[in-house]
Amino acid sequence: MAQKRGYDPSQLRKYDIPLEEIPRLHASDPRVDELISENKPVVITGTDLVSSAMLWDLEYLERNMGNGDYTVFLSRNKNFKYFDDKKISQVAGESKAEFTPPTRRVDMKLPEFSQRLKQWKRGEERMYLQQALNNTVGPSIVQDFLNFRWEWTNAKQKANNWGPLTSNLLLISMEGNVTPCHYDEQQNFFAEVRGYKRCILFPPEQFECFYPYPVYHPHDRQTQVDFDRPDYNRFPKFREARGQEAVVGPGDVLYIPIYWWHHIESIMRGGYTISINFWYKAGPTGQIVYPLQGHQKVAIMRNVEKMLVEALQDPQELGPLLRALVLGRYT
Amino acid sequence: MAQKRGYDPSQLRKYDIPLEEIPRLHASDPRVDELISENKPVVITGTDLVSSAMLWDLEYLERNMGNGDYTVFLSRNKNFKYFDDKKISQVAGESKAEFTPPTRRVDMKLPEFSQRLKQWKRGEERMYLQQALNNTVGPSIVQDFLNFRWEWTNAKQKANNWGPLTSNLLLISMEGNVTPCHYDEQQNFFAEVRGYKRCILFPPEQFECFYPYPVYHPHDRQTQVDFDRPDYNRFPKFREARGQEAVVGPGDVLYIPIYWWHHIESIMRGGYTISINFWYKAGPTGQIVYPLQGHQKVAIMRNVEKMLVEALQDPQELGPLLRALVLGRYT
Ligand SMILES: [Zn+2]
Ligand SMILES: [Zn+2]
Repeated sequence: MAQKRGYDPSQLRKYDIPLEEIPRLHASDPRVDELISENKPVVITGTDLVSSAMLWDLEYLERNMGNGDYTVFLSRNKNFKYFDDKKISQVAGESKAEFTPPTRRVDMKLPEFSQRLKQWKRGEERMYLQQALNNTVGPSIVQDFLNFRWEWTNAKQKANNWGPLTSNLLLISMEGNVTPCHYDEQQNFFAEVRGYKRCILFPPEQFECFYPYPVYHPHDRQTQVDFDRPDYNRFPKFREARGQEAVVGPGDVLYIPIYWWHHIESIMRGGYTISINFWYKAGPTGQIVYPLQGHQKVAIMRNVEKMLVEALQDPQELGPLLRALVLGRYT
Repeated sequence: MAQKRGYDPSQLRKYDIPLEEIPRLHASDPRVDELISENKPVVITGTDLVSSAMLWDLEYLERNMGNGDYTVFLSRNKNFKYFDDKKISQVAGESKAEFTPPTRRVDMKLPEFSQRLKQWKRGEERMYLQQALNNTVGPSIVQDFLNFRWEWTNAKQKANNWGPLTSNLLLISMEGNVTPCHYDEQQNFFAEVRGYKRCILFPPEQFECFYPYPVYHPHDRQTQVDFDRPDYNRFPKFREARGQEAVVGPGDVLYIPIYWWHHIESIMRGGYTISINFWYKAGPTGQIVYPLQGHQKVAIMRNVEKMLVEALQDPQELGPLLRALVLGRYT
């Protein structure tokens, strides 16, 4: 089946994690709505959500995106680990200045990006374009955007009581690029336009397997665990991680539920990939039911960390206080 | 000097903790007010605070306390570790019913208590009377109480902006009884009436050395460390505890600052002891200065624990959540 869909298993990176398949269902299947309403991942086929973008490739975008500057991340290795610039000043540790951004962010015109990508050779910095779709794009792209099947997303948004759409991110990735495992605080329809991306998801209940950085750290929401070389001494519960994976290709939409961990890689030797994120705010909380669900506990933990940084007025004091609170008392 | 004051060092229990002396100052010494205003312990002599109670002994109290019921704790060993009945139902652990009260609480008339104490023999349950002074006491006792030097405590309360006096606890202890180390959430003038008590105090900055039980546990505010046989594997930071001690005798008043850890023992072979606590609520917070002080961090940790139990609606879930929050992330 994998080969029928245009890739083979040797193009997927190998990890020491037990994986199951994410359900792959046609948009007309009633189980799609069931899974979304339960905050469970599903690959949805036949949505036609971004059919109007099916012509998008580097040549088309070069011609039609206009002369705007686009955000491109450059990395010396395959990983593009997100970081929040605004949090760099408050990194904890012996020295405040110890955080080194793992990628650098540059502005590029699309023709330059396209040319560099085509001429790229091993040893050069890898590139990953990540740009919110906004009104600087050219008229053809605007038309394609308007032709997204909004009635489909609007219906899902409404049925599940989600908040407003916050942004659409256009992602153009070199083959083999990896977005290391993290979670987002938004609901996401991840629409694949070109090439294949392999996505591994984990439910929020597995929070303790992933040891995210502190909330005030630039790598907030990112796992500290290196999937290629897990440090099981520092992160023993990573052995208990159990994932669900899918390879999404052109026309597929992956629902990535809010607070779910996800690792995403453009498959190796598969050419560049193009994807579009549809991010939605969480819906209102509604009736609280006990015991709380995993994502609710994650939200609580985030608030404890934020509240303590606020109360202490110094992120450096958070570690000592939390250790005093927990070690020998709750361990 | 110790012998001049009516006891010798062999009457003090031995602990593997470095100890310094708490300053012992006359009420007229201006350093007394300085120490109190800094929330630091001090033994104050010459206050005459409870001079009107200097006649109190078992015979006098038997004659004058009236026929009321008094709260007496009984213990099979020397330790009288406080527990909060109201929290017994919410103890964490495998089984909810695993908490065994270390002492039992009985009501006794004063003559019965007095007689049992005088006839006590090794192997019998030890006794510790702990009774709030209220209006059930006889008229002589009321008069002695009214003759406490309230102008002295009132002046200290006012000068340090403390809240109201909440209670006066009358403590009648057998020799050798121990109140294991804990902290209170109130300011305390501890007035010695009869016999000698040895008090060891530690500042709130040493919180991590004492590993108190969870806030929802009946032993909230009590250390889990057994001073006689410290388990350094479970409680390694107890090695870093540095105490301040004093032996208080008749007429002495020990100021035990709010949130300070204190262990109190009636000295061995010293006869029974009588003491009176004067407990005051903390004053208003006032201007907050950063970095926060130790007692403020303790208050914050207590609130985190309470808030989480409230949010989770189940004390049993607190440990797993705190471990997920801290282990491999802040350790
Ligand atoms: Zn993401
Ligand atoms: Zn106390």
